[in-house]
Amino acid sequence: MNSARSVIGTARIASRGFGAHIPRERSQLFQRTLQRTSNPRSTPNSARHFHNNARRPAQSAVAGASEEESLQPPDSSNPALSFPCLDAQEAKTAKLSARSLSSGPEPSYTTGHHLNYLCHEPLLLDWGGILPQFNVAFETWGRLNDTKSNAILLHTGLSASSHAHSTEINSKPGWWEKFIGSGKPLDTDKYFVVCTNVIGGCYGSTGPSSLDPADGQRYATRFPILTMQDMVRAQFQLLDGLEIEKLYASVGSSMGGMQSLAAGILFPERVGKVVSISGCARSHPYSIAMRHTQRQVLMMDPKWNRGFYYDGIPPHSGMKLAREIATVTYRSGPEWELRFGRRRADPSRQPALCPDFLIETYLDHAGEKFSLEYDPNSLLYVSKAMDLFDLGRANQLQTAQRRQQNSVKLASGERDAAIDQSCNLTLPDQPYEEQPSAIPSQPLTQPVAGSGSAPPGDLVAGMVALREHPTLVMGVASDILFPAWQQREIAETLRATGNRLVRHVELGEDTSLFGHDTFLLDLEHIGGNLRSFLD
Amino acid sequence: MNSARSVIGTARIASRGFGAHIPRERSQLFQRTLQRTSNPRSTPNSARHFHNNARRPAQSAVAGASEEESLQPPDSSNPALSFPCLDAQEAKTAKLSARSLSSGPEPSYTTGHHLNYLCHEPLLLDWGGILPQFNVAFETWGRLNDTKSNAILLHTGLSASSHAHSTEINSKPGWWEKFIGSGKPLDTDKYFVVCTNVIGGCYGSTGPSSLDPADGQRYATRFPILTMQDMVRAQFQLLDGLEIEKLYASVGSSMGGMQSLAAGILFPERVGKVVSISGCARSHPYSIAMRHTQRQVLMMDPKWNRGFYYDGIPPHSGMKLAREIATVTYRSGPEWELRFGRRRADPSRQPALCPDFLIETYLDHAGEKFSLEYDPNSLLYVSKAMDLFDLGRANQLQTAQRRQQNSVKLASGERDAAIDQSCNLTLPDQPYEEQPSAIPSQPLTQPVAGSGSAPPGDLVAGMVALREHPTLVMGVASDILFPAWQQREIAETLRATGNRLVRHVELGEDTSLFGHDTFLLDLEHIGGNLRSFLD
Repeated sequence: MNSARSVIGTARIASRGFGAHIPRERSQLFQRTLQRTSNPRSTPNSARHFHNNARRPAQSAVAGASEEESLQPPDSSNPALSFPCLDAQEAKTAKLSARSLSSGPEPSYTTGHHLNYLCHEPLLLDWGGILPQFNVAFETWGRLNDTKSNAILLHTGLSASSHAHSTEINSKPGWWEKFIGSGKPLDTDKYFVVCTNVIGGCYGSTGPSSLDPADGQRYATRFPILTMQDMVRAQFQLLDGLEIEKLYASVGSSMGGMQSLAAGILFPERVGKVVSISGCARSHPYSIAMRHTQRQVLMMDPKWNRGFYYDGIPPHSGMKLAREIATVTYRSGPEWELRFGRRRADPSRQPALCPDFLIETYLDHAGEKFSLEYDPNSLLYVSKAMDLFDLGRANQLQTAQRRQQNSVKLASGERDAAIDQSCNLTLPDQPYEEQPSAIPSQPLTQPVAGSGSAPPGDLVAGMVALREHPTLVMGVASDILFPAWQQREIAETLRATGNRLVRHVELGEDTSLFGHDTFLLDLEHIGGNLRSFLD
Repeated sequence: MNSARSVIGTARIASRGFGAHIPRERSQLFQRTLQRTSNPRSTPNSARHFHNNARRPAQSAVAGASEEESLQPPDSSNPALSFPCLDAQEAKTAKLSARSLSSGPEPSYTTGHHLNYLCHEPLLLDWGGILPQFNVAFETWGRLNDTKSNAILLHTGLSASSHAHSTEINSKPGWWEKFIGSGKPLDTDKYFVVCTNVIGGCYGSTGPSSLDPADGQRYATRFPILTMQDMVRAQFQLLDGLEIEKLYASVGSSMGGMQSLAAGILFPERVGKVVSISGCARSHPYSIAMRHTQRQVLMMDPKWNRGFYYDGIPPHSGMKLAREIATVTYRSGPEWELRFGRRRADPSRQPALCPDFLIETYLDHAGEKFSLEYDPNSLLYVSKAMDLFDLGRANQLQTAQRRQQNSVKLASGERDAAIDQSCNLTLPDQPYEEQPSAIPSQPLTQPVAGSGSAPPGDLVAGMVALREHPTLVMGVASDILFPAWQQREIAETLRATGNRLVRHVELGEDTSLFGHDTFLLDLEHIGGNLRSFLD
């Protein structure tokens, strides 16, 4: 390093003041020089041009420079950093571009291995949107009894599909594989379990990637804003098709825990027991904030293209980022402390700005895995619906008023008389039945008393429809996305309505460090309490 | 809506099975049709072309369609959503492009209203990088006494500058304006307070936006990886220049709380008291994860251009996103509950995918404000340095070994003999002095006992250099970024070294709901405890 080349190695101005060797002017000169040096090429055009040479440090963008020289410019004080994580994203984009024209770059999110309930009746949504027709994709396990009194509706989390358990036509293990089956918490010897894909999602139910019947083009961001209650209404239309008048129970975790409560409040006479695991009665600002950042990073991906990416490359980088942020909220700090600590992926290497610590490679992998598994627009709409969730009375009244006003839209729309039956159902010849095998685990966690603070009156008034329903509310102390106080709020609110059949269980940090994801993992406590409550 | 236009309104296949009206094949046909319809234009070229029509829904991209028609296509079941948040980003990019060529699009991050300490001596960094020369920008308040025994070195958080308090040459209030001054916790009647900008930052100290003297071009991502200890070494070179042999105290919050400990461990004989507020002894995986997502969203902004954006448009969207994520970690859920609740910015409007709830507009504003205030590359390097922070003995030994191996780099570099004095200082004629005015607040929070679990042996061995130093450790129960257990860990580790002069204060949720940001806001408890400890 020859510091004679420095731009500031020559100025000499008389010194003055308290202990000063060179005056302020010199440093200002330094700054001005710095400013000037960097400016000659600063036009938008040169910036765009330079973008094409992204991997080349500035000073090596000269004719005839070899690739090696560009990467390790001899005139640089230190070598330029490399960015394998960006190389990987670029390679992925190139690979998606190169996919055959016949299959298209956009992946198909649904396996198609599910049942469908297709309604030609328009569905009016809470915020005034209309789905002229809609499909509910679903799967079932166990057998509906003669009195049709043993049905359990299982609600999913945001990104989960109806594939909660393997089926005859799809042997892939489901997201609650160990919780469903003969002798399991959702016991297929006793219950007929129905799990749906939410509308707004991308696993076969109508969502932003579906075709708008009005013009045969994908909805994209012409899809209307929807709510948890809209999703539940579609589910109950399916129950109509299945001729199930009343559910034995409504069960759900995470977003499904919201829907499970919403089902009981929308259709109190059609729901027996209610189970809400790691859910809430209304989304709170921290959860909204975390989902907001996920939506923003996705929408900022230029490939998102305001939702109209179905003919192009999907915004896989934005989806990856959104999932990485989500993953941070799904687990807990203490669990990561035990699992990853401060270990680096390769301690022998110099630290990098790309993933470096094990926790980073874990997040990177989780994001990468999800980036083409779920439709980006579905993520936006379903996550927004979660934000809008509020079982308070005021919100319910406003919604009812809006629905009243908007119901004229339905009346004025032209109906196609040629379609004689409005909803159609597909079911397999033989519903799937679990072969008895596993021995159920027994130990249960004792219910934990609530904090005792009075729940908000608006919420109590809003949940009064559940006053008579046996309800199980479970939460996990290490959950940061749906913190345990939110489940305490549900339980206390229900008790304040006069409900004497509320069971509240909170798993402490001594029981689970898995945070929000505990409901997917803890067969012993989540599953055990579920089973004993349903029996 | 005429459902006769639906692509699935015609198929009729014999029904079969349990209660089914139409069979599975029909839904598969539906899905296949959907797939086919979307594919004809799915080439990368059409995707790129379509990107230019981002605000137009797909079906309206026809010749002659008016703007109004594009936004409200008559054939769509619902109107397309609008995206004012993306419009704003695009407008901002256009505005940055249009900036005068003479000033350049890249903003100047430093006001220049600070002092400089410029060293022509190369600085060897912990991971083997070299800064052939470096500048430390700094500000001071109060007056150094004759024995030079009253100096307090104040360390900043990640994005804060040396401007902790207004000065004669910069009257803008500083980030700790109320904590510094006559009669304040950092009492300028007693102490000479020095606050520096960290190297790696962008407020005048050498960082990625500085010119590499080797070629006169900005370092960008040719800047070497650095550590908290590297920043501290540069600060102590400044202390040499100020002829301060020993600090009265080393004080810092957040990242500064890390540096304050690091200063005492690197130079135990040059530090009197140590204050570490909302800091840690080693970064834990959750904090690394949150910073990882910030770095990733920034690096994914195409304008980041692998760090070489100084001649173009800075990655303001990526910076905005990174700051929004950071902001989520700076405050607490309960505070937001009180401040924003579930209020929407405009409840009369239909919900939007762009910011909608007040908490979202708050995050949006925080991100927007920061997006051009701080150099994106500085964010990457300084945030990475925080991840690398670990005061454990093993890490210190490995670092010492690397430094030993790399010290040959310094010896082999050619030195410029023409520069006779290696470091130069600028100081104002009269250091700033606060006019006595405010009455100090008195109440203090009682120190809270630690959890009692044994601190890790590696950390105890690594912090043994602080065994004799009076140390104040403060934490905040509502902090999710530097959780309170991390400050308990510092205190317990120091006590385990045999230090009997540790004071540990934890502000409970009854005292502060402001989370990590409490150190910026709570003059009474943070300031009060600081004052009483320093006296």
